[in-house]
Amino acid sequence: MTAPSVYLRSIGTALPGPPVDNAALAARFGLNRLWEQWVDTFVGTKARHLAVDLATGEVRYSLADLAETAGRRALANAGLTAADVDLVVMGTAMPDALMPATVNVVADRLGIDQVPAYQLQSGCTGAFQALDVAHQMLLTGRHHTALVLGGDVCAKHFDMTRNPADLPPGEQVNGVLFGDGAGAVVLSSRAAPGAARVRHVFVRLTGLGRAPGQTLEWYGMAERDSPKPPAVEDYKAIEESVPRMAAEILDEVLDNLGWKRADLDFVLPPQLSGRMTARIAEVLDVPDAVEVSCVAETGNNGNALPFLQLERALPQLSYGDRAVAIAVESSKWIKAGLALEVV
Amino acid sequence: MTAPSVYLRSIGTALPGPPVDNAALAARFGLNRLWEQWVDTFVGTKARHLAVDLATGEVRYSLADLAETAGRRALANAGLTAADVDLVVMGTAMPDALMPATVNVVADRLGIDQVPAYQLQSGCTGAFQALDVAHQMLLTGRHHTALVLGGDVCAKHFDMTRNPADLPPGEQVNGVLFGDGAGAVVLSSRAAPGAARVRHVFVRLTGLGRAPGQTLEWYGMAERDSPKPPAVEDYKAIEESVPRMAAEILDEVLDNLGWKRADLDFVLPPQLSGRMTARIAEVLDVPDAVEVSCVAETGNNGNALPFLQLERALPQLSYGDRAVAIAVESSKWIKAGLALEVV
Repeated sequence: MTAPSVYLRSIGTALPGPPVDNAALAARFGLNRLWEQWVDTFVGTKARHLAVDLATGEVRYSLADLAETAGRRALANAGLTAADVDLVVMGTAMPDALMPATVNVVADRLGIDQVPAYQLQSGCTGAFQALDVAHQMLLTGRHHTALVLGGDVCAKHFDMTRNPADLPPGEQVNGVLFGDGAGAVVLSSRAAPGAARVRHVFVRLTGLGRAPGQTLEWYGMAERDSPKPPAVEDYKAIEESVPRMAAEILDEVLDNLGWKRADLDFVLPPQLSGRMTARIAEVLDVPDAVEVSCVAETGNNGNALPFLQLERALPQLSYGDRAVAIAVESSKWIKAGLALEVV
Repeated sequence: MTAPSVYLRSIGTALPGPPVDNAALAARFGLNRLWEQWVDTFVGTKARHLAVDLATGEVRYSLADLAETAGRRALANAGLTAADVDLVVMGTAMPDALMPATVNVVADRLGIDQVPAYQLQSGCTGAFQALDVAHQMLLTGRHHTALVLGGDVCAKHFDMTRNPADLPPGEQVNGVLFGDGAGAVVLSSRAAPGAARVRHVFVRLTGLGRAPGQTLEWYGMAERDSPKPPAVEDYKAIEESVPRMAAEILDEVLDNLGWKRADLDFVLPPQLSGRMTARIAEVLDVPDAVEVSCVAETGNNGNALPFLQLERALPQLSYGDRAVAIAVESSKWIKAGLALEVV
């Protein structure tokens, strides 16, 4: 018995509505030109897509809506139908409900049934976790074609009644940083012309004794008056740790495969904000690889990001090309890496 | 390369506080003897353990607290330490927070680091999902010793300010049905004397076109005034579907292994309520197997239940014995089964 190879056969993504630029955010909340300049300079994120309508506060898209669209596109791009899928795995930090898990709603809408469907609760490394679980399950040979999904919709926490100018800076910046979206890929143990082979994927908790760099709460019926803020970030810890962890991840992926920095054609760095991503790309020190980033235009939409980066990278990859994608989850400090090679 | 066998090496569980019987629930909420009789007759659940203090409303245990205790016990019972664990997988419907995932908090507290840690969002089949993911990852040979956790704590939704007598019957029954708890097992590709071998584990979505039988919401900062109820069950659909699905799961597990009903020594049926479990056990039609149930004494504590059943069953298993555990998730109608054999 030889372990099969696993290929990334196709990709699909979905972003809600048109891009919302910093001027539109500023106009909605009565903020001035100085604020816009501050966002441009210190955050570096130019636009994001939002599931909530800025003017009315209406939530127009759920995570299931976006993931369904992304999944449908990925299947179509692979020339496959629901009946070809024998495994579904999704990563998200913000499911639509606790039950049913959103992955099951998406599977139902896509017509996928009678297969295992798994949803991983995770922040920025959820897409990699989903890829890892699917990859391992394809390697055992029990499954052959997996639909792997990821995405986040922060509309449940996006309180349109609060003026950002009244919020502390940490919460203000979240409204600027984050966006909504979803993505999907088809992983298969059956090769197709031009498909990138998954050479390595890993996820590793490195949180021993470390305080969380990011927390995201949910409220139950009994906690509706709770004073705890929904999202708390330790931006100092994030700025200190993430670039270093990203470099360690790259080293580990390269070591595992016996690749050198010079062998790398594309690098997909962690996407925190436009500015942070630019800093991380410098630390990674792969000047000969093409950097593929999207966060400045899409906002940080969590588990959608790796799919949005892959969607930009894949059409550029040709025979023999090697790409490494990197993610860091600052909640409890999780490292994640993915290596692809067109074979 | 031959796929390794996977063994259930040990188990540990944790229940919060002393059992809360129906008389104690009735006394707390000023309900009468008739109500107690109604619960005894129509629900059949005698007691449950609660993370929230009934008298004060104080939440005394988080899911991380209970899962940490269960995990510590499982490791001790296997004679292993944190350093022996190279994979952690957890199933829950009610994580303590969206980020960090509770599994990472538990791993940190147990001293487990530098390994993948995965948390599956799921209702009553989450423990089986976690077992399945861990089992597959042990089969690829990438991992050797997995700590598999499951549990649920519904304290966030347990609103102590509301008198159950003022609630509609559907919500009243939830307060009677549900409880809190956690469990853990060590799965390993290394055999130990008397360890039960995992012969088969499967999870399968069977929700195509079916409305959810159960929904559980979370509220975001922007939804705190939302009128939607936290938990909605279609008890008619559950009563109709779950016994039939449980029998189908048993048939499928037996067929897969070439076992007959007469070969079965122990059966661990789905644990919805004392009464429903008794009905399901009848439908399963395995009069020669010992039924191992716990829900009448523990309450329905979701993803803790299969561990509580296994903890009761394992000491009774001897060489050659065969056991099948069954779970049904009524959210989007998920089937799950597990077969063990002492080899």
